[in-house]
Amino acid sequence: MSLIRVAILATGDELLNGSISDTNTRDIALILGPAGYQLATSICVPDTPERIAQALRLLIPQHDVIIATGGLGSTGDDLTAKTVAQALGRPLEENPKAVEMIRSRYAKLEREPDPQVLRQAQLPQKAVPLPNPEGTAPGFWLRQQGCDLFFLPGVPTEMRAMLKKTVLPALQRNKPGAAPMLQRNYGFFGLSEPQIESRIPYAELPTGIQVGFSLEYPLVKVSLRIATEDAETRLDTAEAQIVEQLGDYLVSRNDESMAEHVGGLLRRAGLRLALAESCTGGLISQMLTGVAGASDFLERGAVTYADSAKIDWLQVPAETIAAHGAVSKECALAMATGLRRVTGVDLTLAVTGIAGPSGGTEEKPVGTVFLALSAEGIHQVRGYQFNGNRQKIQRMSACMALEWLRRFALEMLT
Amino acid sequence: MSLIRVAILATGDELLNGSISDTNTRDIALILGPAGYQLATSICVPDTPERIAQALRLLIPQHDVIIATGGLGSTGDDLTAKTVAQALGRPLEENPKAVEMIRSRYAKLEREPDPQVLRQAQLPQKAVPLPNPEGTAPGFWLRQQGCDLFFLPGVPTEMRAMLKKTVLPALQRNKPGAAPMLQRNYGFFGLSEPQIESRIPYAELPTGIQVGFSLEYPLVKVSLRIATEDAETRLDTAEAQIVEQLGDYLVSRNDESMAEHVGGLLRRAGLRLALAESCTGGLISQMLTGVAGASDFLERGAVTYADSAKIDWLQVPAETIAAHGAVSKECALAMATGLRRVTGVDLTLAVTGIAGPSGGTEEKPVGTVFLALSAEGIHQVRGYQFNGNRQKIQRMSACMALEWLRRFALEMLT
Repeated sequence: MSLIRVAILATGDELLNGSISDTNTRDIALILGPAGYQLATSICVPDTPERIAQALRLLIPQHDVIIATGGLGSTGDDLTAKTVAQALGRPLEENPKAVEMIRSRYAKLEREPDPQVLRQAQLPQKAVPLPNPEGTAPGFWLRQQGCDLFFLPGVPTEMRAMLKKTVLPALQRNKPGAAPMLQRNYGFFGLSEPQIESRIPYAELPTGIQVGFSLEYPLVKVSLRIATEDAETRLDTAEAQIVEQLGDYLVSRNDESMAEHVGGLLRRAGLRLALAESCTGGLISQMLTGVAGASDFLERGAVTYADSAKIDWLQVPAETIAAHGAVSKECALAMATGLRRVTGVDLTLAVTGIAGPSGGTEEKPVGTVFLALSAEGIHQVRGYQFNGNRQKIQRMSACMALEWLRRFALEMLT
Repeated sequence: MSLIRVAILATGDELLNGSISDTNTRDIALILGPAGYQLATSICVPDTPERIAQALRLLIPQHDVIIATGGLGSTGDDLTAKTVAQALGRPLEENPKAVEMIRSRYAKLEREPDPQVLRQAQLPQKAVPLPNPEGTAPGFWLRQQGCDLFFLPGVPTEMRAMLKKTVLPALQRNKPGAAPMLQRNYGFFGLSEPQIESRIPYAELPTGIQVGFSLEYPLVKVSLRIATEDAETRLDTAEAQIVEQLGDYLVSRNDESMAEHVGGLLRRAGLRLALAESCTGGLISQMLTGVAGASDFLERGAVTYADSAKIDWLQVPAETIAAHGAVSKECALAMATGLRRVTGVDLTLAVTGIAGPSGGTEEKPVGTVFLALSAEGIHQVRGYQFNGNRQKIQRMSACMALEWLRRFALEMLT
């Protein structure tokens, strides 16, 4: 096993003109890293034949593997196959296997591919087409000066599916990776990055463990990475040390989202939940139902923007709204308790607030949010003052609501 | 004014090992683009002296300007100044202006910089230090073989502040940009990328207009770009030509989301809306309320996962569910009509379906989705078969629902 030098070549004007950020480099690193392949270079050039050709000439002698993304579709700016054909002196030809892949994809959709789509089967000589389970454009693989070049679509879902299903197995057969770099990820809620860093027992962590930080607002993500033979054992030790110090704030592990984690706890606790959302506008429901199996614990949700909705569906007394306003402790609590009366579920959670940018007052500025929870014998309500723009306030409010559900479910489970 | 070739050199292991995605390239493009500077290349290499030196040697002859980010701090992996000194043969020396910048930054914080921090003032010979208003590490600027190299911190907030306040003005004095590249973006729903491309009247578009495509599932995004003096006029012409051919499928312009566009139409049409969501779990509400001002048109939404919720809140007859199932045309229509009866709003929309991965049957496989709309004298219902994973099915269902609302609002407005 030796060090395989992997380069990414991303082609696309949209990556250089500010239209979008590149997310493929990170996705590729996360798929290849655990298999022992480290990225040595990532380069992005416009969709122009000269620049793509120049980048290929530069990368091929210095790398063992090149993952090229983008430019495989059927529109005019999809020039990769043609450019590669010219740059490497391998004329384009219709590849029968690629034609077959496109036809069978269309057959499943009960449609006939038009000539423009079939153009995607024109590949450089001796290229091996790679099936694209998520789209119509096949990828392709060719070897040049000992370097394996994989050409994949730029669309992230298509790229990831092909990398996992086809490219990685082909690489592992042809150029086995080094000791895999194992990585575990943890999401924390309720502490800042410096607060978390100061609680990590660096001196006690097993040798070789690297700790990384990143922010996925409002969560702080911590990664542990190591590439030794006994990586799993050392990661287990490090994880136990970190959980001991920070377990109370741990809201997700590995690829799990916070909503998935909280949903799992609600399911284990056998709780039936209903939600009443005002300023979060359905975000909490959407987070919980974005994960399969939410019907196990979610009975229903209400997005009660208008007062009339709070009054009929949640039985909030009109007087409560008149006396305290729809954004108030009193209203939040009435929403949660009313919803529990209406539905008879074990647990209800209500959110009302001002996500902005307008609607704030001196007494209740933008970012004022009230959360309330109701369960048998339990009525909790609390006001918060969150910062940031509308998206940040909605996101923070929804995560705080999930945090309340997490703590409630944990208490039920212990 | 001539074309200035700008390269980005990002250094940092964290950008290549999957810890974070690069967002600096997009930020730099968005700051420099409107000033007439286009990015020709963006390259990312690890924090190792050889790789940084190699990238510099490669980029300098081919670009007029290099923006290098990362490696300017005071910790062990911050090697940029030292590496640049070696690679360009300009020994490190203490730069008095840089010392002054660090001292004055610390004076503001009422602290004394320690020797490790003062190491940040060791710059390559003849480098000009650049103040960092958001952090302690100064940047620096030097010219080599006619290329202007700007070294900035990798932290996005510090990088952006320095780029705007110092780098861009310095560039504009030394190497004025070309005519700014103007760009307009359009989102289309309901046609594939090849279908859209085939309807764009390329031959009639004003000279110099570049057309780009990208996918933001399920929308196809089209960009028009041009950098001539009369760019606005030509963009107006091109936009009119494209709207003539494709206007029926146009669901967003520029930075607007589809939900924002549809919300604007509902507001203009003076319609009051209520939503009943089952398989989309609140996604439609969340999309509409993610934009400020949704209370102008959204009265309420219901996430009715359990049958009991459909029965009480939407007055769906229990017999309808028993006879046809909760995922059926009949149930969808009963949800929409019941919700309108309950709320008295102008317009209701209901979605019920199977988002998967489980819950599908032979008769109603995963991806079966029914939409229904109810308004005065109007009752529409239709079944769809969508493809993909849970996220894709939920997203496609929500966008199709927004499309129904868009068409309804447009009809009211004409």
